[in-house]
Formats: sequence, structure tokens, C-alpha cells
Amino acid sequence: MNDFEYHNPTKILFGSNHYTKLHDLISNVATNEKILLTYGGGSIFKNGVHKKVIDQLAGFNVIEFGGIEPNPQFSTLMQAVEICRSENISFVLAVGGGSVIDGTKFIVGAVAYEGDPWEVLERKPGKTFEETLPFGAVLTLPATGSEANSGAVISRSELKTKRTMGGPNLFPQFSLCDPSVVASLPKRQIANGLVDAFVHTLEQYLTYPSGNLLQERQAEAILSTLIEIGPKVIQDPANYELASNLMWCATHALNGNLRCGVPTDWATHMIGHELTALHNIDHARTLAIIGPRLFEALFEQKKEKLEQYGRRVWGLTGDSESVSKQAIQKTEEFYHSLEIPTKISEYVDSERNEPTIIREIFESRGWFKLGERQSVTPELVEKIVAAAL
Amino acid sequence: MNDFEYHNPTKILFGSNHYTKLHDLISNVATNEKILLTYGGGSIFKNGVHKKVIDQLAGFNVIEFGGIEPNPQFSTLMQAVEICRSENISFVLAVGGGSVIDGTKFIVGAVAYEGDPWEVLERKPGKTFEETLPFGAVLTLPATGSEANSGAVISRSELKTKRTMGGPNLFPQFSLCDPSVVASLPKRQIANGLVDAFVHTLEQYLTYPSGNLLQERQAEAILSTLIEIGPKVIQDPANYELASNLMWCATHALNGNLRCGVPTDWATHMIGHELTALHNIDHARTLAIIGPRLFEALFEQKKEKLEQYGRRVWGLTGDSESVSKQAIQKTEEFYHSLEIPTKISEYVDSERNEPTIIREIFESRGWFKLGERQSVTPELVEKIVAAAL
Repeated sequence: MNDFEYHNPTKILFGSNHYTKLHDLISNVATNEKILLTYGGGSIFKNGVHKKVIDQLAGFNVIEFGGIEPNPQFSTLMQAVEICRSENISFVLAVGGGSVIDGTKFIVGAVAYEGDPWEVLERKPGKTFEETLPFGAVLTLPATGSEANSGAVISRSELKTKRTMGGPNLFPQFSLCDPSVVASLPKRQIANGLVDAFVHTLEQYLTYPSGNLLQERQAEAILSTLIEIGPKVIQDPANYELASNLMWCATHALNGNLRCGVPTDWATHMIGHELTALHNIDHARTLAIIGPRLFEALFEQKKEKLEQYGRRVWGLTGDSESVSKQAIQKTEEFYHSLEIPTKISEYVDSERNEPTIIREIFESRGWFKLGERQSVTPELVEKIVAAAL
Repeated sequence: MNDFEYHNPTKILFGSNHYTKLHDLISNVATNEKILLTYGGGSIFKNGVHKKVIDQLAGFNVIEFGGIEPNPQFSTLMQAVEICRSENISFVLAVGGGSVIDGTKFIVGAVAYEGDPWEVLERKPGKTFEETLPFGAVLTLPATGSEANSGAVISRSELKTKRTMGGPNLFPQFSLCDPSVVASLPKRQIANGLVDAFVHTLEQYLTYPSGNLLQERQAEAILSTLIEIGPKVIQDPANYELASNLMWCATHALNGNLRCGVPTDWATHMIGHELTALHNIDHARTLAIIGPRLFEALFEQKKEKLEQYGRRVWGLTGDSESVSKQAIQKTEEFYHSLEIPTKISEYVDSERNEPTIIREIFESRGWFKLGERQSVTPELVEKIVAAAL
């Protein structure tokens, strides 16, 4: 087991009956009455969450900022940053899914940043969000785990790029996770959430044997649960038991616990981000497109863990090689069972030059050694994307 | 899934190379240079941990307080409380196992308490430790999980009693968990740690089916790992991989995660505490004595989860009734494989009146309805203890 640090100070309030605690939770950290409520496309008005939240905010001067996109855009978020500055906002409440919460992490970091905050996303040396506004979240979509971690992914469409950011001062103070919101979600979003949580887990599990026995079983616990509930929760999203298991799985898939002491991959995400940047394919769907092809391309390096995954999670039997290969097939079939296609051509009718474009992007960024063994080169990325066309 | 709150702000530093961070971690929260270092019987001088810690504390005025017993005693801890008061201590560093960390939680709570702190342990209405000193831990024994929670158990031998306490302000600021300490532990203590973590998990798992699919598998992950490593780590405690898995399992067994949204039992602990209070039997061993007999006494109520446990954790096959029964046998055999006897008579030669004594204790405290279904009455406790003689 590698040495590690684990610290996750976010308070989780899980269930349908925590809204009345919002006022006190915010009062504990807001230094004045001015708060910003951030949200996305407006689903919170249809599903009743906006009203449930606003009803608890008496006494606060609430400014609302909507329109944060899926794959939240730098330019949109900078408008919210300006409001925070001009209005002297002391707390931000994100009401939405991973994009709204990710975007809010950028907002609370950028407010006090001197200079162009894009520098931080470019990872310029020494550039970080040191002073951040406190913020909390009301989760409306189980998927990214952003409600319980300090990371975010921010897009800039004019540059066709997505960048990651994070830091120890970017955890939500609290996250209210109410599984009853799942009942109001489109099937497409539930399926995306299932795959997002599934691949977050795989990125921290499907590497090589490293003797992290508990962490491996904790990952398998999430994968097995998602497989058990997947098609059922899409068919019956109003089933609170299924919805709550989905939401709790998604939180655990990226709350920092699975990566403790273990090697991690994340190459599927890095490649997938570029497909979203190029074609605006849903994040989760890019992971379903790339993941199986990456496992095939790295089969020799990942086959021991693929075998373990096949036997323990899918209950496969037989010789090692065949179990490892079947495990990849089972994974892809699982995505298909959620009505998630796994080929680029099923999403876009493009010139089919994505493999070259993405290889060149990786080269230009100096990403020559990704994955748990630093063996994912731009050339290999090109092959993986080509296999996914 | 029941509604729940989860908040665990303790920073975990896991591994052998974190000692150099101690100074900064303490400086972040200590308000003056005076700190109290608490420890137990002195093993930290033999295994080198005392020196590793002290070497990092230059600049602090360190007062040392040793002699905190297994099952830490109220009278001993009150001496440390007096030192904190008279010396104006601003931070306490617990260096030890669960007893030292539990005792330190009492100390940091009692320092500012006006009146007799025993009132808090008696749970007198309105009596809590409201203002606490900050504290951290250097863990030397994987077992209780106290390094990652806000609970403690305190004993008072003259009253032959053990009492539990806790509160949201009693989490360690940080816990340094170095698995290499396992190499220096007596086999008896390693076995105790394995059983302690195992039973902590069972208390939060072996109840009744409640649709908490992820939490059940997370519990099974800990149980399976402890079974896999148990006899091996006792034979080879210097094996860092085994030791680190044991330590991480013990932390996860009681860091608050397993109980999220689920029914919990804890009757085995409540009965076991009285065996320790009466006969000073090691805490973990009282759990091994009581657990199997409690499962037998509550077989009809627990048989569905016993079956799930038998199939998933022990790989048992056959009809439901037989799998459920074999699961209890397997559990007891596991304790025996760790050289932990499961009968009271193997520990003490007493008058064999424990069943009556413990029934009367439960009656006197008004504990008429323990367990996940409130079905554990004093009469049933008497029967369970009688079956364990």
C-alpha cells in the first residue's frame, strides 16, 4: 500500500428531510447575508427543488445565477465571479448536478484571484486559488461525485478544451443529497450518472495488482451495486431505494476513498474529455466509448485486474485469458443495457479525424505518459480513439 | 435507506513517512506551545514510536502523561485533566491504541467542563462536553477505529462499569496511522484487533435486510479482507502489506461510514463491556464470546442477513437455514483460528453468576430494548451470557 493522505471535511446530509437544516448550515459560515445561488438549465424549477431551497433562505439576500451549462463554460462562470465581486457575496449555494457544483468550485476560487483565473486551469507554476469563498451544494443529479470532493472540470469552448482543477480548500462545506430528485430525471441522465460512477470506480481499480485488498473490494462493492441496480433504476426512477443506492454509489465512487494507497489510471477520462470538447458528447458517454477500447489496447498490462474484476464482479468462470476478455465484453454490454452506445460514429458524423486531432492535442500538452504505468503515449491514444470510431 | 448525516473531518496520514508533518499539523491548531503527549503502558518506547514523535516536536513545550490503561480509567484520566488545567495545555497528542485515543477524547472534553465530568458519561440530561481542546493521534495498534471517529469508552473500576461517550467536537484533528508498528505487537494484540474490527463491522451489518446495497457490500469488503489476512498477519506481522490492510480495515470498520442509513445492533458490545468490567477480559475477546451466542439467540430475526453473510463472505452453499447456521459456526471458527477462545470459562474461574449479574445491570440502567429491533431484553441477555459460560 502506498503512503497516502485522506481528508474529506464535507458534511453529507443524505435523504429527503434535510432541507430545514440549510439555513443554519449557511449561517455557520456566511460572513454576511449576501449569498449567490447557482444553478443550471432550470430543472430545479420543474422538480420543486428550487422552491424547497428558497423556502429555507429567509433572512438571506439571495442573488440567483442560472444557466451554468453541462461542461460548465469559463465565460459563463466569469459572469458569476463578477457578481460575487461586485455584490460582496459571502457564500455560494450550488443547486444542481456535477456541472453546477464544478462550476461553483471555480467561481469560489476565482473571486479573490488576482489576474486571469484561466492561468490556474492551465496549471501555470505557482498559480492556485488560495483564498476561496465557502460554498455548499444541493445535489440534483447523482453522477460525478463533485458533491463530496474538491475537484472540478471546466470547459472553454472557444479553445475546444476541458481542464481539471482542485485543491484542499475546494470541498463543499456541506452537500444535501436527496435521492427523491432521481424520480424527475430523464432516463438519459440517469444512465449517464450510472456510467460516470462506474468509470470513476474503474479508473481507480482496473490497473495492476498492488495488494490493496480492502480498497479493491470497496471498488468491487460499488461496481456490483451499480450493475445490480442499473437497468432497474432507469425503468423505475421513482423507486427511492434504487435511487438512494445510485446516489450513494456515485458519491463513493469519487469521494477520495477508492484512491487511497492505490495506483490509478484516469487515461479514459483524459481522452474522453477531448471527445466532449470536440463534439459535445456527454461526458459519461465518452467514457463508455473509450473505456473498453483502452482496456483492449492495454490488455497485457491490465489482464490480472481484468480477471479479478471478471470473476468477482461479473461472476465469470474459466481460464484467466478468457475471463479477462469477457470482462471487457460484459462492461460494454452493461453500457449497452443502459442504452449508451459505445462508438463515436453513433454520436457524430464527423470527418473521422479524431484520432489524429486528439493525438496532437496530447502531444501539444506534453501528455506523453498517462495511465497507471505511464504507458499511454499519444500514439497509443490515437490507436484507442481509432478503435472507437 | 434511512436519512442520515455523515461528517468525518479527521485528516488521515497513512503510511510510514508522515512523521515529519507532525509539527505543522499541531502548529495549525495549538494556541500556545504547551502540549500534552498521552500514552499507555510504554510500548512506544520499545517500538521507537516515542522517539519518532518527539524528534518532530522541537519548539513545543511537551508534557508527557503515560500509564493510560487498556479500558482507560476515569481516575487516571482525571489526573491528565488536572495537568491540562494547571499547565494551560493547548493541544493533546495521543500516541497509542484505542484506549489511549479514547482516554484522550475524555481528557480534551473534561478540561473545560464545570462540575464532575462523570455526569457526561452517565448521560445526565443536558450534560455534554461543549468546549474541547484540539487533539491528534499517532496510532500504534489497529483495532478500535478510534483514530477516525468521535466516540470513546471509559471505565470506572471502583463502580465496575464502562460507559460510552462522543460528540461532533471529539474527532481527532489528524491521525497518523503507520502500519509498520504492527511488526512490534504481541500476537495477542493483533488477534484482538482483528476481532474488534470484525465485530464492529458485524454490528452494523448482521441485522435485517434493509435495501442498503452499497453499505452491505462495503461491510462484506471489510469482513472478507479480515478473513483473508487474519491468520497470515498474526504469523507474519512484519509483512507491511498485510499490516497495512489490517490497519485500513480497522479504521473503516468504525469511521462512521458503515452505519450510514442502516439499522445497527451493538448489543454484543453492550453485553461484552460488562464482561470486561466484571473480569477485565480483553474487549475484543468479550465480543468473540458474546457474538456467536447472540446470533443463535436471535437466529429467527437475523437469519436473512446471516444467510447473505454466509454466501457472500464465507462462500457457503446449500439451503437458507443451513447456510445461516453455518455462518455462525464459521465466525466462531475464525475467532478460534486466531487463538481467541469463545467461552467465559476459558478466561475466568468464577462463580458462574455472570448471567444474573449482567441481567440486573441492564435492568438497573433501564436497558430493556437493545439491538436493531429493540428485542434484546435483560432476560434475553441473561440467556445469551448463560450460553457463553
